Amino acid sequence: MSSESPAPDSVVEQRKQRAEAWFTELRDRLCGEFERIEDELVGINAARLAYTPAGRFQYTPWQRDDSSVADPGGGLMAVMHGRVFEKVGVNVSTVAGHFSENFAQEIPGTEATSGFWACGLSLVAHPRSPHVPPAHMNTRHIVTGKHWFGGGADLNPIVAHEPDTRDFHAALKETCDTHGDDYYDRYAAWADDYFYNKHRGEPRGIGGIFYDYLDSGDWEADFAFTRDVGLTFLDIFPRLVRRHMFTPWTEKERAYQLFRRGRYTEFNLVYDRGTRFGLQTGGNPDAVLMSLPPLASWP
Amino acid sequence: MSSESPAPDSVVEQRKQRAEAWFTELRDRLCGEFERIEDELVGINAARLAYTPAGRFQYTPWQRDDSSVADPGGGLMAVMHGRVFEKVGVNVSTVAGHFSENFAQEIPGTEATSGFWACGLSLVAHPRSPHVPPAHMNTRHIVTGKHWFGGGADLNPIVAHEPDTRDFHAALKETCDTHGDDYYDRYAAWADDYFYNKHRGEPRGIGGIFYDYLDSGDWEADFAFTRDVGLTFLDIFPRLVRRHMFTPWTEKERAYQLFRRGRYTEFNLVYDRGTRFGLQTGGNPDAVLMSLPPLASWP
Repeated sequence: MSSESPAPDSVVEQRKQRAEAWFTELRDRLCGEFERIEDELVGINAARLAYTPAGRFQYTPWQRDDSSVADPGGGLMAVMHGRVFEKVGVNVSTVAGHFSENFAQEIPGTEATSGFWACGLSLVAHPRSPHVPPAHMNTRHIVTGKHWFGGGADLNPIVAHEPDTRDFHAALKETCDTHGDDYYDRYAAWADDYFYNKHRGEPRGIGGIFYDYLDSGDWEADFAFTRDVGLTFLDIFPRLVRRHMFTPWTEKERAYQLFRRGRYTEFNLVYDRGTRFGLQTGGNPDAVLMSLPPLASWP
Repeated sequence: MSSESPAPDSVVEQRKQRAEAWFTELRDRLCGEFERIEDELVGINAARLAYTPAGRFQYTPWQRDDSSVADPGGGLMAVMHGRVFEKVGVNVSTVAGHFSENFAQEIPGTEATSGFWACGLSLVAHPRSPHVPPAHMNTRHIVTGKHWFGGGADLNPIVAHEPDTRDFHAALKETCDTHGDDYYDRYAAWADDYFYNKHRGEPRGIGGIFYDYLDSGDWEADFAFTRDVGLTFLDIFPRLVRRHMFTPWTEKERAYQLFRRGRYTEFNLVYDRGTRFGLQTGGNPDAVLMSLPPLASWP
């Protein structure tokens, strides 16, 4: 992590506001797209859910409880239980406070202050069909004594479709290549390393990209990259959903989906950095654990 | 933790063998009792599972992989998918090796050596009926530079039945009182503290007892207490199962059961000491995570 000379407070404040405005805009565009997909379901997969209407997002605000700061923040959970999406959550949260002494040791820029500000969007989609891949995307801006962006997107197919893997990685690579020659190689490798169930000795899915502590010295460039990661996901993931949402599935594929969701749950509760950050900073547990699947099995 | 004067190696070896023989005998008695319960199911709860035969345990051995010791050990998983018990696992494992440097810092008796030997029985029962309480029991003997017993038993009702809570605690209290005046108060409080989902601010169930690092200075007495905890569970839990196994349940109760199992999963993956010990010491992940429910939901 390199750094520009420290920005005046007014610039830092303006950047926080721009980041939050972007995450909110991206949330609205993602939720709109997912609701359109809900409306588009026809055929056998709609018929087997004859009495289930197309899903719509439900919005639940939450406040963070912390008397150490004037505005501890909170967030807005957007969750939809639909026909194509058995459960999909898109959370935007903006929080500020002070890290616990132990947790501060894991975070850059906490030498002089334990104060933090963080804003981010997290998305987890658990489709009903085992042919439609579950996906995760998160982007965030964090300010301590330092400031950086982080995020990533990864795909967790149940029934493997090789073209999905290829197209998902190609889309991320194209975006990465626009912003930094080595971004794709580094961030795809980081995703492979990060999205890995060590105790099982197996990857969570087919990867994607993961980045953290991104401060190139050019805040505008880093913010632009982070926006593009969100836009890339907004483009590629709905394409993969529409590719498979009409395909019928078998009970055996459904059982395997529930089993794979168990492994997904293991990753999120044992390793996930965002989950850990949320629970360590007094986040709303329902918002932090929104990522967990609607139904999972350990047979 | 107080301590006798160090026992000669031959005595330590004999104790290890006696502990392992006990855990194996207890396993056989528990599995036998659970299979008898499977045979006893009649009435509507048998009829709705008309084609499901009474369950029987399947036994799967596993070996621990560790070249640092001559015999790294392993275990035997016993798992039954039955009619009364949707999933019940009873594992006995005997492992030996060396702790990682980090993990050793959390364990007593590792100043002079990182070597350990551990043998224990763990049991987790996930009944099919929301009226039959899920239960957990574990007892273990651990030898490092020190030696101690640990264990506990707790009940996690879905549909609350007050007499169950009363009888479960009364049985444990009677056993505790035989072995130490303050055992019940201390170990019941420890269970309340331990079996608690901090991030949710809620207990996992209605408690029971939990103890660890038990070395009173009298190995025989500590071993006798540990045996009695197992025998108490072998007596009280089947009585609670038989009390409720014939009661019909509703879909709403079933849905709530799956939701509560989600919370149970959160505890085991985020906090459980045995899970952490198992994964940190290279245990078989299927055996370590045998405790996870056959089906769980995060609605």
